[in-house]
Amino acid sequence: MKPDPAPALLRPQGDHRRYPSLLTDLYELTMMAGYLEKGMAEKHAVFDLFYRKNPFEGGYAVFAGLEPALDYLEGLSFQPDELEYLQSLRIFKPQFIEFLREFRFRCKVTAPPEGTVVFANEPLLTVEGSLAEAQFVETALLNIINFQTLVATKAARITHAAAGAPVIEFGLRRAHGPNGALSCARAACVGGVRSTSNVQAGMVYDLPVRGTHAHSWVQAFSDELTAFRAYADVFPDNTILLVDTYDTLKSGLPNAITVARELRSKGHELNGIRLDSGDLAFLSRESRRMFDEAGFPLVKIVASNELDEFVIDSIMDEGGQVDIYGVGTKLATCAGSGGSALGGVYKLVSVNGLPKLKLTSDIAKATLPGSKQLMRALGPDGRFIQDIICLEQGDPCGGKLVYDPCNPLQHTLLPAHVTLHNMRQVVMEKGSRTLPPETLKVMAERSARELAALPQGCLRFINPHRYKVSISGRLNDLRNRLIDQVRRSMGHD
Amino acid sequence: MKPDPAPALLRPQGDHRRYPSLLTDLYELTMMAGYLEKGMAEKHAVFDLFYRKNPFEGGYAVFAGLEPALDYLEGLSFQPDELEYLQSLRIFKPQFIEFLREFRFRCKVTAPPEGTVVFANEPLLTVEGSLAEAQFVETALLNIINFQTLVATKAARITHAAAGAPVIEFGLRRAHGPNGALSCARAACVGGVRSTSNVQAGMVYDLPVRGTHAHSWVQAFSDELTAFRAYADVFPDNTILLVDTYDTLKSGLPNAITVARELRSKGHELNGIRLDSGDLAFLSRESRRMFDEAGFPLVKIVASNELDEFVIDSIMDEGGQVDIYGVGTKLATCAGSGGSALGGVYKLVSVNGLPKLKLTSDIAKATLPGSKQLMRALGPDGRFIQDIICLEQGDPCGGKLVYDPCNPLQHTLLPAHVTLHNMRQVVMEKGSRTLPPETLKVMAERSARELAALPQGCLRFINPHRYKVSISGRLNDLRNRLIDQVRRSMGHD
Repeated sequence: MKPDPAPALLRPQGDHRRYPSLLTDLYELTMMAGYLEKGMAEKHAVFDLFYRKNPFEGGYAVFAGLEPALDYLEGLSFQPDELEYLQSLRIFKPQFIEFLREFRFRCKVTAPPEGTVVFANEPLLTVEGSLAEAQFVETALLNIINFQTLVATKAARITHAAAGAPVIEFGLRRAHGPNGALSCARAACVGGVRSTSNVQAGMVYDLPVRGTHAHSWVQAFSDELTAFRAYADVFPDNTILLVDTYDTLKSGLPNAITVARELRSKGHELNGIRLDSGDLAFLSRESRRMFDEAGFPLVKIVASNELDEFVIDSIMDEGGQVDIYGVGTKLATCAGSGGSALGGVYKLVSVNGLPKLKLTSDIAKATLPGSKQLMRALGPDGRFIQDIICLEQGDPCGGKLVYDPCNPLQHTLLPAHVTLHNMRQVVMEKGSRTLPPETLKVMAERSARELAALPQGCLRFINPHRYKVSISGRLNDLRNRLIDQVRRSMGHD
Repeated sequence: MKPDPAPALLRPQGDHRRYPSLLTDLYELTMMAGYLEKGMAEKHAVFDLFYRKNPFEGGYAVFAGLEPALDYLEGLSFQPDELEYLQSLRIFKPQFIEFLREFRFRCKVTAPPEGTVVFANEPLLTVEGSLAEAQFVETALLNIINFQTLVATKAARITHAAAGAPVIEFGLRRAHGPNGALSCARAACVGGVRSTSNVQAGMVYDLPVRGTHAHSWVQAFSDELTAFRAYADVFPDNTILLVDTYDTLKSGLPNAITVARELRSKGHELNGIRLDSGDLAFLSRESRRMFDEAGFPLVKIVASNELDEFVIDSIMDEGGQVDIYGVGTKLATCAGSGGSALGGVYKLVSVNGLPKLKLTSDIAKATLPGSKQLMRALGPDGRFIQDIICLEQGDPCGGKLVYDPCNPLQHTLLPAHVTLHNMRQVVMEKGSRTLPPETLKVMAERSARELAALPQGCLRFINPHRYKVSISGRLNDLRNRLIDQVRRSMGHD
């Protein structure tokens, strides 16, 4: 092992080099070498990226990470130092290294736009093209989409709990590394968070940045009132005072009210206060009462400290008077039941036009074979009725029976009158983007609009309503046929 | 919000520019502007970085992230585009922007070497120097140290469970972004993991890289045996076959044994097989038996699939025959009780030589004021007896009473004969490194050695023995005096 070098992701990498090409599991390279040697590299393959369980034991996910994923795909090429490194591993033959030198990603990619509300088992990204290229990008695509989608979903849950009160992302200090924090700020916005404390994210994504002062500011002065006065003096129109360094009710709030009066006498208004410990429901009510009585009904109450959707929910339930929530650790690390990961997978569903299947010990969880479309059935009011996964060409669903992908015995009749909306579009053709990038604002508006169109109960945190995702009759038949084939080939009856 | 730009962390940033300077919470900048305007920027400040609860409800943490943190500190300077951005926020005065143009980090930093086993409440990094500089670096230091230490600790727990069987880090696809994965591979090695599937991490940190093939390799061929043969043909000396695509016992293992025979007939040996689903304890026993009976006692059994220290523990308990563990999601996302974050904080403990205190609602949790040393008491056999936090100058502890920092009524006599080892060293003076960087191997050896020297029971996963961390009598007196001062000033009696 070498002494610790500079973090490679941060090193200058050349013009079109945003993500390192070696951002991959080794087996993507060994498989690619194998496909090449076996003359299979140019077979036509289709891979689906999907996940099997909604994160946080919740009712949905908010799809995010597409733009970074397309950045990765467009910029993909092996640099001389990377090839040299691969050679040094003594695993690969020289022909493969030469193949990598010219390697580019030229596949077609289909995906929903970011901010789309999606569900378990739905094909999110579909990558079509040469087996070598489509296989190779698996790990990086999963890395990018899994995390961004997870954060966007967590942010949507937190925003929903806050019920209109703005949420600020405060997670930089607990995020999984510098880039984890940056991706987090981006994806949180797709899910509805409005601003961030992370200045770099503010600059890179043009997000509003927010912040006040730390306890150390108060400690650095002889006493709390002096510290508050100093801050207000430097930022008279932009002061939010942290009131819990010594004692919120006995010291912080009275001192903040004094400073609010002094600011007003000079023609300014105190922006707000921040509560960062203690019983936030109680303290926010007391703060509101004290400021109202003192004649400052517009002073905003910001709350932070280990917040998540559940804590915010309980603060609301108890009549908390919080105007703005600062959410850090639990958002940045996607804390919650079900673990801090989205279990997205990337599965081969077709080779040279032949649909492919992967079985698991639970046959109902077999992958969905073949090239597919993802449709959303909308009611006359635009509300979402259910999603349907069908085969790509000429597989009409309206007025037909559709099947539960996890329980083939369950089927329902899809009404003939529903509007079917194709949820995905071709976002990349021959390795080049086909659409202009969207702004985060457009993505955030989409997620808010779609979450509002879900059946009631899907947004519930505990035991949410299970939104129906069906497969078409033809897809169900295809899958059953392939399952039978595999079982027969293994001597099952 | 702008359209999605390139990920900023990945952009070329100039020679000495590894981490962006705006990798910070906004309030670090507003406080720095405030200190500058109030003539306090050059006050002499001391900050301690510490955490209050061992991660994963465990008995210890493995300190990591120092080298990246020092990279950050050495490279810290504001670039023209960053200053322009800050100006555009209309929060800061021109004098402050000019101040930032010349800003460099010139403080002294004290820390334990990476791989040191540390505990709650112990000062890890201590930063001493100008208030402006020492305050500013808070967020980035926490971001780097919190995550690296968390991963190293998780890795140490997993390695402990594996009881000598090598552990491979497989987490790239579920890690929190590209850099999250890279940092994870690094920190996992500090905690005892031996290799990684992440090729970029292999290149950057010179770690052994490992990998085999995915289910898609098997699906891409007409049948499993053909797929296995093809892989073995391409990598005859480096083949580990994934045996669970269709049916592990009925298809995967028999086919793998066939290929093992064929390889041997050509003068090669099958390396191993990988189990990625099902009952890993049972399947590994069956695999071992089948390979042994077929005359392949050296074929290695690799297990993966949602492994963590608890699952590995239970596989061992049930007589599992796993030779190598591949651990992904749970390591990369630091899954576990207590959440996927280390709650490290960075607190002001002294200004211009005056010790400072931050109270919380629980007085026993008040910060430890003043400049301190972190000592480890070793028995004659070199085993760790307890750690002691004392004041920096002339604060002898041997033969004296020492106190529980969380419960001042608890005290014990530290035997006079113990050897006291200073756990930390000055790693940066005037903003420059004082020591050559260590290799990850040295750090990994340190963590293994120190974990072996802990009192029995500290390594237990459930209800571990609580290693004693005490404060010296003088530090206890100082803290009590400051607590009294604050209480009196707020009218408490």
